[in-house]
Amino acid sequence: MTKIKRLLIFTGVFLGFVLLIPTSALAQENSTRTPAVEQQTLESLSTKIADVQSNADYIWTLVAAFMVFFMQAGFAMVEAGLTRAKNTVNILMKNLMDFSVGSIVYWAFGFGIMFGVNQTGWFGTDGFFFSDFAKDNDQWLFAFWMFQVVFAATAATIVSGAMAERTKFISYLIYSAVISIVIYPIFGSWAWGSLFHGGGWLEKLGFIDFAGSTVVHSIGGWAALAGAIVLGPRLGKYTKDGKPKAIPGHNLTLAALGVFILWFGWYGFNSGSTTVANKDIALIAVTTTLAAAAGSISSMIAAWYIFKKPEATMTFNGALAGLVAITAGCANVSPVSAVIIGTLAGILVVLSVLFFERTAKIDDPVGAISVHGVCGAFGTLMAGVFDKNGFSFATVGVQALGVGTAFVWSFGMAYLLFKVLQKTVGLRVTPEEELEGLDIGEHGLECYPEFEKVS
Amino acid sequence: MTKIKRLLIFTGVFLGFVLLIPTSALAQENSTRTPAVEQQTLESLSTKIADVQSNADYIWTLVAAFMVFFMQAGFAMVEAGLTRAKNTVNILMKNLMDFSVGSIVYWAFGFGIMFGVNQTGWFGTDGFFFSDFAKDNDQWLFAFWMFQVVFAATAATIVSGAMAERTKFISYLIYSAVISIVIYPIFGSWAWGSLFHGGGWLEKLGFIDFAGSTVVHSIGGWAALAGAIVLGPRLGKYTKDGKPKAIPGHNLTLAALGVFILWFGWYGFNSGSTTVANKDIALIAVTTTLAAAAGSISSMIAAWYIFKKPEATMTFNGALAGLVAITAGCANVSPVSAVIIGTLAGILVVLSVLFFERTAKIDDPVGAISVHGVCGAFGTLMAGVFDKNGFSFATVGVQALGVGTAFVWSFGMAYLLFKVLQKTVGLRVTPEEELEGLDIGEHGLECYPEFEKVS
Amino acid sequence: MTKIKRLLIFTGVFLGFVLLIPTSALAQENSTRTPAVEQQTLESLSTKIADVQSNADYIWTLVAAFMVFFMQAGFAMVEAGLTRAKNTVNILMKNLMDFSVGSIVYWAFGFGIMFGVNQTGWFGTDGFFFSDFAKDNDQWLFAFWMFQVVFAATAATIVSGAMAERTKFISYLIYSAVISIVIYPIFGSWAWGSLFHGGGWLEKLGFIDFAGSTVVHSIGGWAALAGAIVLGPRLGKYTKDGKPKAIPGHNLTLAALGVFILWFGWYGFNSGSTTVANKDIALIAVTTTLAAAAGSISSMIAAWYIFKKPEATMTFNGALAGLVAITAGCANVSPVSAVIIGTLAGILVVLSVLFFERTAKIDDPVGAISVHGVCGAFGTLMAGVFDKNGFSFATVGVQALGVGTAFVWSFGMAYLLFKVLQKTVGLRVTPEEELEGLDIGEHGLECYPEFEKVS
Repeated sequence: MTKIKRLLIFTGVFLGFVLLIPTSALAQENSTRTPAVEQQTLESLSTKIADVQSNADYIWTLVAAFMVFFMQAGFAMVEAGLTRAKNTVNILMKNLMDFSVGSIVYWAFGFGIMFGVNQTGWFGTDGFFFSDFAKDNDQWLFAFWMFQVVFAATAATIVSGAMAERTKFISYLIYSAVISIVIYPIFGSWAWGSLFHGGGWLEKLGFIDFAGSTVVHSIGGWAALAGAIVLGPRLGKYTKDGKPKAIPGHNLTLAALGVFILWFGWYGFNSGSTTVANKDIALIAVTTTLAAAAGSISSMIAAWYIFKKPEATMTFNGALAGLVAITAGCANVSPVSAVIIGTLAGILVVLSVLFFERTAKIDDPVGAISVHGVCGAFGTLMAGVFDKNGFSFATVGVQALGVGTAFVWSFGMAYLLFKVLQKTVGLRVTPEEELEGLDIGEHGLECYPEFEKVS
Repeated sequence: MTKIKRLLIFTGVFLGFVLLIPTSALAQENSTRTPAVEQQTLESLSTKIADVQSNADYIWTLVAAFMVFFMQAGFAMVEAGLTRAKNTVNILMKNLMDFSVGSIVYWAFGFGIMFGVNQTGWFGTDGFFFSDFAKDNDQWLFAFWMFQVVFAATAATIVSGAMAERTKFISYLIYSAVISIVIYPIFGSWAWGSLFHGGGWLEKLGFIDFAGSTVVHSIGGWAALAGAIVLGPRLGKYTKDGKPKAIPGHNLTLAALGVFILWFGWYGFNSGSTTVANKDIALIAVTTTLAAAAGSISSMIAAWYIFKKPEATMTFNGALAGLVAITAGCANVSPVSAVIIGTLAGILVVLSVLFFERTAKIDDPVGAISVHGVCGAFGTLMAGVFDKNGFSFATVGVQALGVGTAFVWSFGMAYLLFKVLQKTVGLRVTPEEELEGLDIGEHGLECYPEFEKVS
Repeated sequence: MTKIKRLLIFTGVFLGFVLLIPTSALAQENSTRTPAVEQQTLESLSTKIADVQSNADYIWTLVAAFMVFFMQAGFAMVEAGLTRAKNTVNILMKNLMDFSVGSIVYWAFGFGIMFGVNQTGWFGTDGFFFSDFAKDNDQWLFAFWMFQVVFAATAATIVSGAMAERTKFISYLIYSAVISIVIYPIFGSWAWGSLFHGGGWLEKLGFIDFAGSTVVHSIGGWAALAGAIVLGPRLGKYTKDGKPKAIPGHNLTLAALGVFILWFGWYGFNSGSTTVANKDIALIAVTTTLAAAAGSISSMIAAWYIFKKPEATMTFNGALAGLVAITAGCANVSPVSAVIIGTLAGILVVLSVLFFERTAKIDDPVGAISVHGVCGAFGTLMAGVFDKNGFSFATVGVQALGVGTAFVWSFGMAYLLFKVLQKTVGLRVTPEEELEGLDIGEHGLECYPEFEKVS
């Protein structure tokens, strides 16, 4: 027994030296060591590492959110640039207000509907005004909300361009609130809602939409389609025999600036959708770049072929089409696939713009329906087709289901909304106001009062 | 004994396997293990963790600083957009030069005055040209300076808008240097100076101004007030019987772009003011968003009520008013409080703009005094009123003291400065130059030479 | 034996308590512990720390890359603003397409040529389309490519300004591909190629060009010089007796906005060139700021002295000159040296612009040759002269060698390329198209169709 005692003493001293003294040094205290201290040291190191990673997640998610916020400036510039000077202040006000109204109501209602406890299976029912589930995990909730609110605002602002130059401002404000409270968050809860509680039926089926080709862009694009249909075309857009007439935008420099801003912000949109600072963000940035570049080139070539000149507005929309189309699959397709997706989206957007303008005779001043609706749907399908995990009809089928559901839900709800607005407060300004311009009529001032206009 | 020997050998091998081999693997060397190595391993892990966190602090603080730098573009666009085309080059040059002059003199003098060793209790006296205290902690000092210089430049550039369209360029350059060497850093040392050495008297009292509603915005705003008073109104701003006449800005698209850029940069301004990558930045981003959104909406509604139309420039200033007002309390008020603060600031800025234009007859072309001075003071008070730690008259009293001190110091010093400039180099251009525009008079070229002006 | 058994059991329990239970707690599982777990814990902590640092490197490198991408908007605005309205759409298209074409071909060929295995010593021969060396280290490769592609695009886009207002669009597209496949990557492989495989001959000599004063800016600037020479001056730039006539830019607000965007993006360009989230980025941001500020001021003063007024476009170019010049040495010169470098660059750019316009009679509408070529060369020399490690003629000699090599390579190759284009597809539009404007001729639409032009 004494041998064993000595052995125990020896072992204890040895372990104490090996393990506990360094622990003491780390903890910078002098009390007698016990094994529990050692446990705490290892635990606390591990906790500290997790904490630093978590801090990195916060800064990544927030910087990305800020970049997505900045896309509002991009949308404002694209839309302002592609429409006429007499309606520019109205465009700018719509863009500023859909973010402002959208973020207040998304804080109040939308976020809870999208991410709250979802007992019915159809939408969340708590977390309004940051209540209730704010208890769970306060600080991350704030970071996550910040990233989500800029997405909600993106969906909202897409519609503004398609309804430009003829929509009553008050009706647009009401629409902004409804899409941010109802249309966007409910579909969002189906596809992305599980991030906090439960999970939506679409994501349970395996629906792939990493950063929102469908959830954000198609939802916005199909609401834009409904708006453009209910409103009807701008005065002078079609001749009596139904031929479309070009109504050129007033400032293509602004439009190009907007495209660059959107492309920049899109890196936050796509890469930031990890909401985690990890290594996946690099591939996402690469696929995003390649798809946008391919979309610019292919749309330019398509426009060159059709119009005999490399038309600029088509090229601008081609870059955006590539970006919209890669958004769903940016994290699960290869760089080569990204080039293919972008190339096809760039051609598709040109054909789609021509289809809506010439065949369907739906007047969409900036091409929002084609860029966001059509290319969003296309990109979501392609995220299934080019899935790195291999092609399967089941996957593509689920993608198609998601795409179809988004169309039915967003187009249907928005159509209803705009019809109700039309019958109540009125959706469209008077023809007199439209001819004079909405800046004077709706806001009482001109955008460029000092410059002489071509009469 | 042999059993014990075998046991010892076994234990040694066992421990060697458990503890020392992995240590060897980590340290990537093969020398004989001693307990000290183990200690070093644990210590070095802890040091490494702190180092990674520190690296995250650097990237966060610098990215935020870059975003705040970009606010210079926002100020330039807002100010250019809200003034006349004939003075635009002058606005742009003023904005570029106040950052350029400001950052050179802030490096040379301002930073040392604000953050150097403060023996007198009134201002720092070392650290000029990065000397002296650069020894302490070189690299962080550079990161911290980078964040501070963009703040100093923000205070400086605010004044440019209020003094637009009539100030001599050379006088503006002198003013830029003085605010960046004297007015901003000395007040800054009172409220924020303790970050490196000692501490200012205001912060010792418990003054809350997290990101600078008072330190940056009010200091800039009250200097702007002094400048606008000393200069007097623009020619044609008031009729002979003192009625104000609207002088519309020449390009509201630029103004809106500027508002979006400022809002984007403000996330760096407020969230970045932690200068640490931690989880608090999320709440700050949320309160910043909600206050800005609420400010846009409430100012639009106020303008709608007063002018019968949702006037755009008031709405733009409302967003900025919400941002200025939340800046002091962004880290210590709740989201609900942020909505309230933003809402009130949006209304306040409309009333304040009308007060200065109609009642006080002080001509501030872009509303800088109201946005930055008045809403900065208001927001600083509200940071006390809505303090999460509970309301106390003592807290609000200290806030009021800080607000009042900022007014007396900045307005007083700037008034003196502008009077001295007026008597020496001259503060205002000649009436002929003012009518022709400062672009030709001061800079010898036009901003938009190809476009026909409304005569 | 029973004693030993008991001892073993006791030791096992003891070790279990000390080591394995906390490990269990960390791992959050309940299976029986073995000594290997402890090893794994220490190893895994160290691995986890390295992983978090690596994640920080990814977010830093990517955010910096996004900011550099945004510089494309800055170049577009500067170039559009400094040229005439009738050629603006063409400028915008060139800027969008050189990034788009450039990034596709840089993915396909350029990146492999610059960073692939370099057996000949002259250029890399693998890694095309992300093949081959993509196996090594996939994810970092994507992050690194993202940072490199925006640099390649910067080199490409510099040329656009010098060749503005007279170049055929199709030829510009071909040039874009060639610079991104051949001219930029081959020189890049000499100076920076070692990052993955082997190393270029210039970097082996100790050539200092931290962020690309030579590799990016001079390469672009000397190609711009070749283009401007081959093209010849714009119609009306010189009188019959060879006197230069000013052709003012159409929108200086855009130019100023572009300068601010470029300055903002430059922080990503220079600080991001660490491609590691570490503490060095702070000094880089500081030297970048001070050089740009000093460049603005000195160029303004130089212009004031020469033209008797603080001319705006010279001042804008002075800020860019300071930025270009500090790019090589931003990480290895002191803040004081940065001020000196920026100051000299600001003066140099004014003299250089006047030299090319008045003496050499080379028409460079935006000053790209002077800003990027001349100041890039100057800054690269200064990175040697002001090297923190002390002055040596050997260092400066190597800098001069790199500068000279860049000139011979880029100017020579670009001259050849433009001559070939001139003889084949044609480099310059017809005089009729040039007079009417390239927007109509090349792209079939106007940039500002609603505004009356000065006749």
